Amino acid sequence: MIFQVQIKVMPLKDLLDPQGKAVLGGLHNLGMTGVQDVRVGKHITLQIDADNEAAAREMAEKASKQLLANAVMEYFEIEFVKA
Amino acid sequence: MIFQVQIKVMPLKDLLDPQGKAVLGGLHNLGMTGVQDVRVGKHITLQIDADNEAAAREMAEKASKQLLANAVMEYFEIEFVKA
Repeated sequence: MIFQVQIKVMPLKDLLDPQGKAVLGGLHNLGMTGVQDVRVGKHITLQIDADNEAAAREMAEKASKQLLANAVMEYFEIEFVKA
Repeated sequence: MIFQVQIKVMPLKDLLDPQGKAVLGGLHNLGMTGVQDVRVGKHITLQIDADNEAAAREMAEKASKQLLANAVMEYFEIEFVKA
């Protein structure tokens, strides 16, 4: 079965996010002063061929831990999309 | 009112995604051959101060079009999170 998995990788809440700060400055320069905070991370969609959802989730977690997210600076969330 | 807005910016479906292809190769090298396709985009969270949800959505769309997403290569999706 094919599963569509979405992984969100974001900088940890306690850490500075220079890219987000730069985007915030850019938005303020464009006049959008209502924006108070910006954080920028990665969004990754995986298409996984697995026997069941549990196996697909396990593979997505393994992929996140081993390659996609750096646990020192980032956290990740996994979400399944109906295929 | 403060609104928490999540914006997903992904490469257009018809375009090649070299970063995704690189991640796919890396996952295969790690033995995760069940992963068939990877696409990598950006995930941006905005904290917006606006009078109501419609105004916040309008600001998020303006921010996406003017700064966050490149319409030639990317599409974006806006999602509200309960604050």
